[in-house]
Amino acid sequence: MIGVVATLTVADGKGADLEAVFADLAAKVKANESGCLMYQLTKSRTEPNVYKVLELYASDEALKHHGSTDYFKAAGPGIGACLGGRPSIEYLDAV
Amino acid sequence: MIGVVATLTVADGKGADLEAVFADLAAKVKANESGCLMYQLTKSRTEPNVYKVLELYASDEALKHHGSTDYFKAAGPGIGACLGGRPSIEYLDAV
Repeated sequence: MIGVVATLTVADGKGADLEAVFADLAAKVKANESGCLMYQLTKSRTEPNVYKVLELYASDEALKHHGSTDYFKAAGPGIGACLGGRPSIEYLDAV
Repeated sequence: MIGVVATLTVADGKGADLEAVFADLAAKVKANESGCLMYQLTKSRTEPNVYKVLELYASDEALKHHGSTDYFKAAGPGIGACLGGRPSIEYLDAV
């Protein structure tokens, strides 16, 4: 299994937009990717404008498949438009 | 729902010990806590000796219950003995 923590920092006032775009994406991920065991957007309690996506994939293949889906690619511009800086993606090996 | 990212930095050579203690704890969490939707130990690919526990709880009550269980308290010393510094616990609100 592979864990991912994606840290997204939104521009001021763009939180609601991110949450809307992400809700649509997350619904498609959950409906289509049995190899995605968790895909949860969360909001930091301590850092304003910071969101973290907590993700868990059953395998490398499941993670690669996720990134290759049309709906994931289609959500990119909408998410990008909300961000105030580059996202940071951390990959972790489940043990 | 509440997300938690617990960052645990082990002392040199103590990774396997942490993984053993945690495997026992995680099994008890999964067997006893329906409100714990994810409880996964992961190892950083970029930072040596750094582990992150990715956790998701259905509610504040589920999170509080987790921390109050006997087996969680009993695992504390075993985990503590592996650490090379203070753990950092980040709480996040699922959106």
